[in-house]
Amino acid sequence: MPGNTFGKIFRVTTWGESHGPAIGAVIDGCPAGLKIDGKFIQNELNRRKPNLNDPLSTKRNEDDKFCVLSGVFEEKTLGTPIAMEVWNTDAHSQDYSPTLFRPGHADKTYLNKYGIRDYRGGGRASGRETIGRILGGAIAKLIFKKVAPKMEMKSTTEIFNKSKKDSFGGFISIEVKNPPTNLGEPVFDKLEADLAKALLSIGAVKSFEIDLGIKEAGILGSENNKLKKGTLGGISTGETIKIKIAVKPTPSVGIKGRHDVCIVPRIVPVAEAMIAITLADHYLRNRCSIL
Amino acid sequence: MPGNTFGKIFRVTTWGESHGPAIGAVIDGCPAGLKIDGKFIQNELNRRKPNLNDPLSTKRNEDDKFCVLSGVFEEKTLGTPIAMEVWNTDAHSQDYSPTLFRPGHADKTYLNKYGIRDYRGGGRASGRETIGRILGGAIAKLIFKKVAPKMEMKSTTEIFNKSKKDSFGGFISIEVKNPPTNLGEPVFDKLEADLAKALLSIGAVKSFEIDLGIKEAGILGSENNKLKKGTLGGISTGETIKIKIAVKPTPSVGIKGRHDVCIVPRIVPVAEAMIAITLADHYLRNRCSIL
Amino acid sequence: MPGNTFGKIFRVTTWGESHGPAIGAVIDGCPAGLKIDGKFIQNELNRRKPNLNDPLSTKRNEDDKFCVLSGVFEEKTLGTPIAMEVWNTDAHSQDYSPTLFRPGHADKTYLNKYGIRDYRGGGRASGRETIGRILGGAIAKLIFKKVAPKMEMKSTTEIFNKSKKDSFGGFISIEVKNPPTNLGEPVFDKLEADLAKALLSIGAVKSFEIDLGIKEAGILGSENNKLKKGTLGGISTGETIKIKIAVKPTPSVGIKGRHDVCIVPRIVPVAEAMIAITLADHYLRNRCSIL
Amino acid sequence: MPGNTFGKIFRVTTWGESHGPAIGAVIDGCPAGLKIDGKFIQNELNRRKPNLNDPLSTKRNEDDKFCVLSGVFEEKTLGTPIAMEVWNTDAHSQDYSPTLFRPGHADKTYLNKYGIRDYRGGGRASGRETIGRILGGAIAKLIFKKVAPKMEMKSTTEIFNKSKKDSFGGFISIEVKNPPTNLGEPVFDKLEADLAKALLSIGAVKSFEIDLGIKEAGILGSENNKLKKGTLGGISTGETIKIKIAVKPTPSVGIKGRHDVCIVPRIVPVAEAMIAITLADHYLRNRCSIL
Repeated sequence: MPGNTFGKIFRVTTWGESHGPAIGAVIDGCPAGLKIDGKFIQNELNRRKPNLNDPLSTKRNEDDKFCVLSGVFEEKTLGTPIAMEVWNTDAHSQDYSPTLFRPGHADKTYLNKYGIRDYRGGGRASGRETIGRILGGAIAKLIFKKVAPKMEMKSTTEIFNKSKKDSFGGFISIEVKNPPTNLGEPVFDKLEADLAKALLSIGAVKSFEIDLGIKEAGILGSENNKLKKGTLGGISTGETIKIKIAVKPTPSVGIKGRHDVCIVPRIVPVAEAMIAITLADHYLRNRCSIL
Repeated sequence: MPGNTFGKIFRVTTWGESHGPAIGAVIDGCPAGLKIDGKFIQNELNRRKPNLNDPLSTKRNEDDKFCVLSGVFEEKTLGTPIAMEVWNTDAHSQDYSPTLFRPGHADKTYLNKYGIRDYRGGGRASGRETIGRILGGAIAKLIFKKVAPKMEMKSTTEIFNKSKKDSFGGFISIEVKNPPTNLGEPVFDKLEADLAKALLSIGAVKSFEIDLGIKEAGILGSENNKLKKGTLGGISTGETIKIKIAVKPTPSVGIKGRHDVCIVPRIVPVAEAMIAITLADHYLRNRCSIL
Repeated sequence: MPGNTFGKIFRVTTWGESHGPAIGAVIDGCPAGLKIDGKFIQNELNRRKPNLNDPLSTKRNEDDKFCVLSGVFEEKTLGTPIAMEVWNTDAHSQDYSPTLFRPGHADKTYLNKYGIRDYRGGGRASGRETIGRILGGAIAKLIFKKVAPKMEMKSTTEIFNKSKKDSFGGFISIEVKNPPTNLGEPVFDKLEADLAKALLSIGAVKSFEIDLGIKEAGILGSENNKLKKGTLGGISTGETIKIKIAVKPTPSVGIKGRHDVCIVPRIVPVAEAMIAITLADHYLRNRCSIL
Repeated sequence: MPGNTFGKIFRVTTWGESHGPAIGAVIDGCPAGLKIDGKFIQNELNRRKPNLNDPLSTKRNEDDKFCVLSGVFEEKTLGTPIAMEVWNTDAHSQDYSPTLFRPGHADKTYLNKYGIRDYRGGGRASGRETIGRILGGAIAKLIFKKVAPKMEMKSTTEIFNKSKKDSFGGFISIEVKNPPTNLGEPVFDKLEADLAKALLSIGAVKSFEIDLGIKEAGILGSENNKLKKGTLGGISTGETIKIKIAVKPTPSVGIKGRHDVCIVPRIVPVAEAMIAITLADHYLRNRCSIL
């Protein structure tokens, strides 16, 4: 059953296997009249690219140049689906084998579920899948540059630097400053519920915290009531939305293929993209709250 | 815009304000032929009821007797929508006022968003809304009693008992033992993504952890690969699924109305219901993976 | 799989079997602040009731009094789900039998599909199911009374009066005058596509025509271009939208139970309700076309 | 708001403007393990291509070669999104102008709705958009070749041949022989309701008839009950499903650009594709009817 689309009004559908010819996204529901800034989009893509000078990063060397195939005319959105894609140019399929199930990877669960898998790499479970998310997130960010120019995301990481012979994870904290008010639809589509889904849909993420997160379990009600919260009742208050996620160590340790030792820095732009997509979707959904 | 439905195939829609005449749920997509055990459903409802003997629990005294209005014939599901409802019998509207915005509550965000609110209580943001979730979750649990009888949920709480004059929160850990394999649809509808959404949609929940959760940020890849995980690549492995959530203290401290001092115990059955609904939805979704 | 919800933003979910305790609807996505006119809603329900003085109409004598259980406070919508229901008071189950499959009815296809059926009547395939549609349509009409007061529906019927010992069908033509412009989302959710679905979802309807309908197959392009059309490219132009549907004769001929000889007049308000729901949904959807 | 996706489980999303670089589709929800027959898909595409030897057909000369970018590995579907595209190679944008609104076209309604349009051609309202539908329909047909090999579609046209200086329309009748039983989800997603939507979503289609269609308005109930019907209660019986649609004359008469005089023959494969997609979606949906 389909599971490759995120959002109800601003809908991002991603496609592509890590070792197929291309990776892409179709964004349906982006309003018409939005100026598309190609440099900005390319820059967002570059943020998730491996840093070849960084000893912690994979040596897979991709250009990751995107093209827009529809939905934009004379640099403005038409209100029609925006199809974007990035061609894979540095896929080394020979590093993989149909009978090797890498530990900690999705290889085996995919095979169990579908009875078939693209053994040339991680397929849809590969980090390259996140290219489509970055493309969708970049469009979402362009929306907010126009409609809520004061909104900004501030991301910080906490990495436990250990051995270079092993892999390790860390934490990412993201603050959304000056978000629009009234985002979030009670009861199941609370803003924090959709944000949690957005972030847990990223392969390596193992936790989600909003506001004070796990610390709220230990605080007294009288104190908690005095704090400023990003959401109340699932609806944004306009105060800073604080999110924290835990990223597990990449499972690709000591096995063939070119992999990251620590993927935390590369997940930052992906997490931001998912948050931007979620907020854009709720920004549009909120237009129907009042007659 | 609508936000009161959870699930794609097994769809639970809840309705009802805390001080309106009734609270209910419509479950669409439940397969035909499921035996409905009314005692079990009532028992699930009773688990979330205030414990009048417990000094930490609200004194609102509701019968919470449910009735089934459709979708069931001679104790079996018909494959048509199951409408269930519980009538509110102990609503004290006089405890509330249209101009009182209770701190930490959704009163104000609802008013901002909708320009109107039911000031007689929490409305949809009230804990009574969870009755509809319990009803949906009970049906979901009945599905698993039939199709995966070994599956079970084991819930434990960790409560920081402090002052009875204040409110406080805690943690809930839930283990799903012997879950079906192959649940979860990559990439956005990963099982953990939908579980995170399910649990963050509960009013007081502020975090979500899966498997080792925040601890995975600090573990080495080589160690992590040796551990058994509930999901890989967003798909259930058949191993125990471990979930942990933080519950904030209820904001109703020192204000009128009858409220809980600690809602952690009452959230346990709600969390279980949301997990059961999510798993039932994915159990049915998985039927379309292979031709 | 669920199929009892219509609409994407203005979502109407109906439930209830003909011989169960009640029939109802949950409307999620109705904007807040709409004045609810109970008399108008009851009047819409009365329009679909059997006319006991009409020899062509069933003798089933139902009060069809509705109640609102949620989503409305002090006569205004809250932006939360509106739950409405009508109790069945005159169900004669003894007219039916588990082993009688009435010709032309859905009895057998339901049993084949679900392996079970409510043999006490038509269940969900009964005309009583349309009560939920009327309730949803009445709310939709109230929206247009406020936002597009000039819009009106003019319905006419063409009935082939034949024998009173047999049943017969006819045509219904509905003109939507002064509709809002810009309704309809290319390419699959064209306004006429959703209208066609809306009307073919009514049990006895066997055709759908828009504008000149089947006559457009025989007209020259140069002539056709001169005519005013209700939609172009799937989007409403503001000109009158002309719809025509064929209604088959009711299959309940010479068998037990109380049935209509000609259901065309009773389908008129149902068809209007489905059109109103479709237009309301598209009216809200159109709010997201432009940034 | 998005409107470019059809189907709930077998979901086809199309994208692309007539004069943009490419046209394509993403099919999410196709089960894994389906053999992809590239020749068959190309042949389906060729059926909708202009016939350059036919004086009634446009002179736009496109290769319409498709490529598959994801979701297929070693000629079998992976259960992941199938991205397919066709590049536009013969777009003559100079035939169009930003200030020319062609009569009978969607040019003006698109501009009104979105405040912008791709004036180089019909954009999304162009017939070229149907390429994505053909691609989705071809995959759907491959599903049925495997799971219901006896099912076949028989299409016939009725064209009113008039002047070559004008354009004209006609009728298309399609019989689906030996369809699977139990397709269709009451009450709103009746099989005929989704088929009606599928066909009315094709630009030039102005009517939809099922079974005897408009003739059912004039037949007696006792006679009608004796006839074999393709659906009862919205669920397929296994009998032949008979569909008839009216196609209007193409509005491109005596204006620049290369256009068809009669598009009826070119709509036949598009109508078949939409029917196949609808049936495939319902085939998968029906898997969840019984526990």
